[in-house]
Amino acid sequence: MTAVKRNLFATFLTLALLAPGALRANDEAETIRSVLLAQAADWNRGDIRAFMQAYWKSDSLRFASGGTVTYGWRTTLERYLARYPDKAAMGTLTFTLIDVNVVSRDAAVVFGKWELARAQDHPWGLFTLVLRKIDGTWVITADHTSSAEK
Amino acid sequence: MTAVKRNLFATFLTLALLAPGALRANDEAETIRSVLLAQAADWNRGDIRAFMQAYWKSDSLRFASGGTVTYGWRTTLERYLARYPDKAAMGTLTFTLIDVNVVSRDAAVVFGKWELARAQDHPWGLFTLVLRKIDGTWVITADHTSSAEK
Repeated sequence: MTAVKRNLFATFLTLALLAPGALRANDEAETIRSVLLAQAADWNRGDIRAFMQAYWKSDSLRFASGGTVTYGWRTTLERYLARYPDKAAMGTLTFTLIDVNVVSRDAAVVFGKWELARAQDHPWGLFTLVLRKIDGTWVITADHTSSAEK
Repeated sequence: MTAVKRNLFATFLTLALLAPGALRANDEAETIRSVLLAQAADWNRGDIRAFMQAYWKSDSLRFASGGTVTYGWRTTLERYLARYPDKAAMGTLTFTLIDVNVVSRDAAVVFGKWELARAQDHPWGLFTLVLRKIDGTWVITADHTSSAEK
């Protein structure tokens, strides 16, 4: 083979070997995006219980915000219900998914921005989520949220 | 084999198959703990440049705090140098590593608490770090820090 042909062959071989993994990661990233966008839609319908389905139903679920850590799915649900008692408090949530990083077959890290449009204020901040694929479904196992300075 | 022997054999086989992976994850977690504890020691010697060695030397390094995102190793270093101009501002840093979760051969998520003891105040908060093993070394590729409410 000439050098050019050898290079083309090597490129083709590399693509053929890498593509399945890269495609799988892209597919998984798309699935994760849809889970999170559906979650925001649930919030905007005022349905906190539906919103909570994206979280791991485990006592080990970790939810960190500011300096506070909450463990467990039920405790996290109760925290949301107490802080957002009605549609006015919930406002309209927008997630901007800045980075969806699938780091293995069953683990991903998502970084993004959250914004809440409400009648009286417009809080916003950033989040880092850890997701694991458990029994075939991507769920949030850890959530770290920070608020922009007021 | 009796049922008891079959159960014992199945247990032994499971342990034999799982142990190498579990041991490797434990070793990696120990390595990551030492990287982060050495980093706090560097800080407490007043050496921000040594502290910064634990971060990925890339323009893609992501540092999020409150509502602010900084990209790039050099920009992150400059942010630290500006915010902590001397030993008094740096204070004494303590990391409490609450969870070191090795999610694959080359990815880990660390969750912990940071505290800064200074003459005038005692700020503290939480952090989520993403680490990747790059060229055989664990480095922080993303850092999300939040502060406890004042």
